[in-house]
Amino acid sequence: MHTTLRSASQEVVIGLDRPFCVIGERINPTGRKVFQEQLRAGDLSAIERDVAAQVAGEADMVDVNMGVPLTDEADLLSRAVTLVQKLTDKPVCIDSSVVEALEAGLAAYEGRALVNSVTAEDDRLAAILPLVKRHDAAIIGLPNDADEIPMDADRRVELARKIVDVATKEYGIATEDVVIDPLAMPIGADTTVVATTLETIRRIRIELGVNMTLGASNVSFGMPGRHALGAAFLPMAMSAGLTSAIMDARSPQIVEAVRAADLLLGNDEWGAAWIAAHRAKLHET
Amino acid sequence: MHTTLRSASQEVVIGLDRPFCVIGERINPTGRKVFQEQLRAGDLSAIERDVAAQVAGEADMVDVNMGVPLTDEADLLSRAVTLVQKLTDKPVCIDSSVVEALEAGLAAYEGRALVNSVTAEDDRLAAILPLVKRHDAAIIGLPNDADEIPMDADRRVELARKIVDVATKEYGIATEDVVIDPLAMPIGADTTVVATTLETIRRIRIELGVNMTLGASNVSFGMPGRHALGAAFLPMAMSAGLTSAIMDARSPQIVEAVRAADLLLGNDEWGAAWIAAHRAKLHET
Repeated sequence: MHTTLRSASQEVVIGLDRPFCVIGERINPTGRKVFQEQLRAGDLSAIERDVAAQVAGEADMVDVNMGVPLTDEADLLSRAVTLVQKLTDKPVCIDSSVVEALEAGLAAYEGRALVNSVTAEDDRLAAILPLVKRHDAAIIGLPNDADEIPMDADRRVELARKIVDVATKEYGIATEDVVIDPLAMPIGADTTVVATTLETIRRIRIELGVNMTLGASNVSFGMPGRHALGAAFLPMAMSAGLTSAIMDARSPQIVEAVRAADLLLGNDEWGAAWIAAHRAKLHET
Repeated sequence: MHTTLRSASQEVVIGLDRPFCVIGERINPTGRKVFQEQLRAGDLSAIERDVAAQVAGEADMVDVNMGVPLTDEADLLSRAVTLVQKLTDKPVCIDSSVVEALEAGLAAYEGRALVNSVTAEDDRLAAILPLVKRHDAAIIGLPNDADEIPMDADRRVELARKIVDVATKEYGIATEDVVIDPLAMPIGADTTVVATTLETIRRIRIELGVNMTLGASNVSFGMPGRHALGAAFLPMAMSAGLTSAIMDARSPQIVEAVRAADLLLGNDEWGAAWIAAHRAKLHET
């Protein structure tokens, strides 16, 4: 099962037999007051630094979110997508909960985007999936119902199945273009949440066979040692079947853990990428 | 399923619902010429430094191996076990391929030891299991047949089942006192070996339900970035069902990965150990 995303000139393929797809997460004003004020004033210049940092950290794609309250998010996201495509050839994940913003972002995008995201409610599916189909994009499906996040794997798998069924049967989207988010929650709130996420990943891999991505930073939210937690979580999730994550590529420890897991899971032939990366490191020092 | 090991004053319990058991691996002359010569001359003083380093790295147990060619290994191992028990209260894993050495080590040991190891051949089982039973110890079983290491999970599970069956039915050893080594091989030789180890772990967990340990350093043998590979491998293996490893506790990156995985898998209640360890670190700096 391969999900293919493209910019004007680069292609990324997500799949169980491919190196893990790192989607850089920082082009997002959530929780960043200064960035929010800049965006409110129409100043997108901070994006340049954020894109450069994610690309330097070897992100395979970048997530672009312009969710600032009391702004024209559609206009901002459209401009941000255009700007990001000038800054990097990496394919883009267009991230919004506002349908008009997704539409504007998709219209501005050159290539084949990943849309982040749709939830399992009928009205959201009916609003977003036709857009995805019309723009020949791929979609991230969140197994949320209404505003509730299911805390058990059974219900998440059930809602994931609903999203895949509706996308494929009602809107003619290919199964491989539906990427499910198995939902990562903070371990600090409840030490059973990662077990639930891992079980959800294993079951979606077996029962639906689709690609998966999640917001990896959520897991360590509020805890000390966040890089070490991320670096332990992602190899576990990858060995369960996770094929991508929206994560901060500025953390060398977490990115190295992902590339180590690629090698250990047989997705780095002859260890060529691992050995080359470590040879480059030796030359740096 | 709980495997309980003891020194004169400390107890370690290995189990899926317990923090991972780190067995420090360096009290072993394999590949260490200077240490071999010292041992040949009857000089055990290097053991002091090695034990101190493993304990400083927060090993839960220590593995003691005195396999030096052309020596009286039984005498050396007996003396080493006595010395190690003076140096630390951590329970010991008595490691030899020589039956007489295991016997001497067990006779010298005060507590409940883990014996490393027995293979699946009938003559080895018949020589070692009565010793394990007589000394009320626990045993690590390697699913090797003769001198061949099976490269597929099916055969490893089959040989593991044989060891468990013979130990429990013929020698009256409790199932929880048989710890299986699912066999970790170097990823540098063949990039499919870790997938086989992970599949073996998953199947032994489901089909036999016993505790497992392995030599974690083998995986990264010959590769650059060994700490990062170990730190990615162990969380994957732990989420598959591995409950212990013989590993080098001198690597903070690998030990931290194990403790992060304990938290993420729900074996660090309230994250108390994780938070305390990071608070201690802050105080150090």
